Amino acid sequence: MALVRSSSSRLRSFSSLMSPPSTAAVYYQHGAPDAVTRIIEMPPTVVKERHVCVKMLASPINPSDINRIEGVYPVRPEVPAVGGYEGVGEIYSVGSQVEGFSPGDLVISSPLTSGMWQTYVVKDQSMWHKVDKDTPIEYAATITVNPLSALRILEDFVTLKQGDTVVQNGSTSIVGQCIIQIAKSRKINTVNIIRDRPGSDEAKEMLKKLGADEVFTETQLDAKNVKIFLGNLPEPSIGFNCVGGNSASLVMKQGGTMVTYGGMSKKPITASTSSFIFKDLSLKGFWLQNWMSSDKAHDCRRMIDHLLELVREEKLRYEIELVPLSDFKLALDKAMGKLGSQPKQVLQF
Amino acid sequence: MALVRSSSSRLRSFSSLMSPPSTAAVYYQHGAPDAVTRIIEMPPTVVKERHVCVKMLASPINPSDINRIEGVYPVRPEVPAVGGYEGVGEIYSVGSQVEGFSPGDLVISSPLTSGMWQTYVVKDQSMWHKVDKDTPIEYAATITVNPLSALRILEDFVTLKQGDTVVQNGSTSIVGQCIIQIAKSRKINTVNIIRDRPGSDEAKEMLKKLGADEVFTETQLDAKNVKIFLGNLPEPSIGFNCVGGNSASLVMKQGGTMVTYGGMSKKPITASTSSFIFKDLSLKGFWLQNWMSSDKAHDCRRMIDHLLELVREEKLRYEIELVPLSDFKLALDKAMGKLGSQPKQVLQF
Repeated sequence: MALVRSSSSRLRSFSSLMSPPSTAAVYYQHGAPDAVTRIIEMPPTVVKERHVCVKMLASPINPSDINRIEGVYPVRPEVPAVGGYEGVGEIYSVGSQVEGFSPGDLVISSPLTSGMWQTYVVKDQSMWHKVDKDTPIEYAATITVNPLSALRILEDFVTLKQGDTVVQNGSTSIVGQCIIQIAKSRKINTVNIIRDRPGSDEAKEMLKKLGADEVFTETQLDAKNVKIFLGNLPEPSIGFNCVGGNSASLVMKQGGTMVTYGGMSKKPITASTSSFIFKDLSLKGFWLQNWMSSDKAHDCRRMIDHLLELVREEKLRYEIELVPLSDFKLALDKAMGKLGSQPKQVLQF
Repeated sequence: MALVRSSSSRLRSFSSLMSPPSTAAVYYQHGAPDAVTRIIEMPPTVVKERHVCVKMLASPINPSDINRIEGVYPVRPEVPAVGGYEGVGEIYSVGSQVEGFSPGDLVISSPLTSGMWQTYVVKDQSMWHKVDKDTPIEYAATITVNPLSALRILEDFVTLKQGDTVVQNGSTSIVGQCIIQIAKSRKINTVNIIRDRPGSDEAKEMLKKLGADEVFTETQLDAKNVKIFLGNLPEPSIGFNCVGGNSASLVMKQGGTMVTYGGMSKKPITASTSSFIFKDLSLKGFWLQNWMSSDKAHDCRRMIDHLLELVREEKLRYEIELVPLSDFKLALDKAMGKLGSQPKQVLQF
């Protein structure tokens, strides 16, 4: 951190047409992220007429960032590349034709774009979205990949109304936590499935505090019909799956629609032909990047503003760990699960 | 047959307010169809004001009829019950308030309704649909359960246009054959998958004669990407599955939408989480009975007329074996696959 701070203040005197030099986490080839990623100093770049130069404040290490480095993501970035796809920063300088942005504004990358893991990012003004300065930076940095996914899978597959119920697995994931809270804010009930593990009681407690109506471990639901547990809740209108395997089977036990947005167990989804025919089971998938490239995304900034408003009203919370860029390797290990279950790692610049 | 004919002519002299007695295939409890089903004589029943009494001509033994007798169908009929859900007959007599029907008219049961395996059926006039007298009775008897399913799964899930391609397994089934022919009549291409078995070359030949563009055995497609085989055909817009297991995996290899309407292998469907997320795989099911009870079915007779027109124009053909009711047990064995692959068994009265 010390290095970064001193260089950024030292470089304020540079021409406004050039960015300051930038400290960046770069990968030169695809492979194990800790082996192929290095922190390097990037030279200043030109800030063109419509460009905005942002002094980055924070950017998360998302699982998709790791997959991109590994080269296993469906869209394989060209190398060398700076990591990171979402983040927040403060405007440092603007090109001569830039309108509506001024130095000091708090902005997030929107739409999602590459190269966020560095101290200064220069992009066209269309790639930045101004957000309220009261927004906690760790939420501004992470509002798109996880919370927007949660909002979209809640809204895009069935029409949910007050009093309806949704069921999900992987409920302690950030998307899972967001689903609980967004549903809560709309008076939609959530039935939540979590893994059996030491500390599952604490996890249940944590999710209930966020507004979860019911939380069960996989084993609790395994042998039984989820209806027994529903109590007064109506049967789920939709299910969300980010795990796969048996955990997905528990979500789809009711028939109806299940949306898969992750596969943490790396196990496939299996369903009987009769559940499709007689229970009208419908299995779909959600990929934010695909959604982002569709017409539906034209309104994406309004959705992000809505989510950030929930954050500022303290109706949307999830656990995050801010880590200085100098601790990048440690953050990477934590993000990759090498040190057990950890909060979302967010690089702070 | 002799018994039935003589009784029907003898009974024409009965009061027009009573049906003739009826010879029926009845099951008294759920279980193995050959053990629980018997041919019995039913007494005459009252033909009420709005009733139509039909002298049945033909009614198929569909797999769903067998499942209903076994008690494994999702909707379990009350016993005792006369078997059969679709069929064709000639009007024998009509109640005093019946309009638009006359003795001698050729009618089919529409919507589908129980109790077709008998020589005389009395139902409300709303349960009968008049069809062109030139229609071959084996097609009139079977036009709803299989061909209408084929039409609906072609039309209800994606919008197909001339030049598009669909892929299916179980292509030698009647629904499969109907899909090929209806697609052909709309200039839609079909890629067809069949089981590896003795006689698969003849099956390929037969399907190509019906208009199939490509026919492959499962083994041919197993190791390879179906794209290699597509030649100049565009990638499939949708896939249809009536088998499950590996055969379903071959259909969904391309991503996109797959509709399951049967499960001949009794094996489940398995797909990776990534195919849902990154290939936008969407798995759905189709159940005619469910469709029939929806608003969409209000137009079902117009669809049936369209299909029967294709039949009369010789654009829709499938193999059928007409069997006299006196050979019911043999027909049942054939329909249940006890004598190997057999054409659809249609009882003739």
